[in-house]
Amino acid sequence: MIAEGVHYLPGTDPFYIAWKLVAVNLSDLAAKGAEPLGVLIGASLTDGSERFVEGLRAILTEYDVPLIGGDTIRPIGPAAFGCTAIGRATTRPVPCRSGARPGNRLYVAGELGAARYGHAQCVAGGGVLVEGFVEAYLKPRPLLAEGRILARDASAMMDISDGLLLDATRMADASGVTIALYSAAIPLSRPYFEQKRREGRGPFEPLAGGWREAASWGDDYALLVATDYMLEQSSEVATSFVGDVLPRGEHAVLVDGQPVTGSLGYEHR
Amino acid sequence: MIAEGVHYLPGTDPFYIAWKLVAVNLSDLAAKGAEPLGVLIGASLTDGSERFVEGLRAILTEYDVPLIGGDTIRPIGPAAFGCTAIGRATTRPVPCRSGARPGNRLYVAGELGAARYGHAQCVAGGGVLVEGFVEAYLKPRPLLAEGRILARDASAMMDISDGLLLDATRMADASGVTIALYSAAIPLSRPYFEQKRREGRGPFEPLAGGWREAASWGDDYALLVATDYMLEQSSEVATSFVGDVLPRGEHAVLVDGQPVTGSLGYEHR
Repeated sequence: MIAEGVHYLPGTDPFYIAWKLVAVNLSDLAAKGAEPLGVLIGASLTDGSERFVEGLRAILTEYDVPLIGGDTIRPIGPAAFGCTAIGRATTRPVPCRSGARPGNRLYVAGELGAARYGHAQCVAGGGVLVEGFVEAYLKPRPLLAEGRILARDASAMMDISDGLLLDATRMADASGVTIALYSAAIPLSRPYFEQKRREGRGPFEPLAGGWREAASWGDDYALLVATDYMLEQSSEVATSFVGDVLPRGEHAVLVDGQPVTGSLGYEHR
Repeated sequence: MIAEGVHYLPGTDPFYIAWKLVAVNLSDLAAKGAEPLGVLIGASLTDGSERFVEGLRAILTEYDVPLIGGDTIRPIGPAAFGCTAIGRATTRPVPCRSGARPGNRLYVAGELGAARYGHAQCVAGGGVLVEGFVEAYLKPRPLLAEGRILARDASAMMDISDGLLLDATRMADASGVTIALYSAAIPLSRPYFEQKRREGRGPFEPLAGGWREAASWGDDYALLVATDYMLEQSSEVATSFVGDVLPRGEHAVLVDGQPVTGSLGYEHR
């Protein structure tokens, strides 16, 4: 469920509201390795809703998912939208976030950091799609095909919608383990990297401290996978090795061997 | 999808918002003869949402339906709620609104008119549950068990959510037929009947003109069924014979042989 002023900026092109509404739901299916069967949409429609319909058509066409139902209302206040995506599991068991076991290796499919700068740019620029990382924020790509392949080997899987640190904490708590991440291994998106360079850092230097921003902001919709396998040896899906699963210790998540303090990511209220 | 100020009055006890949100969706399943498998809820929750949770628990317990997913947000404007109900068809074919055929007999399961007065009373009294027909408006009962039985014999079926006249028009248009209703046969609810009497009409007299109000207001969630069978002879579900299905003529719906003018019911905008 997303609402104007809460989950997106007033003035956002409705095309991207529709795209993102469906994309975040398809990303949840991707995290289960599920094949989408259809979506149902509840939408506040007003004048100018043609762009919403265009965005809806665009993502449903792109991922070949039918619209199978829903409802529309004419709102009297800020608009709100809901989406239910229905899918069919392609593996048994279905990957869940509680399945990570000590000895598992941890991977990320996709890249982190672009959406954070996309959001900042939308705040500054009124939501116009001007650069690559604005697209990452407004038009995320659910990793459906990747999720189906990764599900075959996954002990646990979830999408990183609220930041790597926070979502890894959730996986660790649900699984009763500690997750040890290596900051240098966090896959940073190219726009994020380039932004850091524009900020005057050297090509390597910024990344040492730069992981924290990329790992504590959501909306990138990468997949976090715990597995017994060496996914580097699988050529089907590009993944980055980011950490190890340890027996549960004092802390849910360690980065470079140290506990993490401060905000971990986007906490839903 | 329902929104504060659009589908319910501000100040309505959130218990009934939750109940009705789920009830109207289960009613759609009832109209398909489907067995509910679960519901997903999207809800704007704020302080005082305990009553929403209580209402949700009440109807899900009453109809033995699990909550299988959803999302919550903290709204900045009027609240909005969405529900997706998932069910499994119990008959093949699944009854649809386009299946009515000339020669079918038309039945209503349930009664009409109570919700209209319940709404009026809520407007006057601030949504307090004081009488039987306020309950009909705020706490409708989806006819799930009845729908499953009726589905076996139905050529077409739908729930009457926007008024008998309007929904019969929709069935007639979808089926390419004319529906002839008999006003005296429209099953009026007891609270509606009693209200008419309180308005000073005789016990029979008001019903002659009284059908129009009851037939052009929704929210009663009765079922409208077109069938080849004489449902009066079935003791399993109480139904009222209300009309006949005719070959398509000039008008979609006739009442006592005459076309209907003016508002037919609740038109969603």
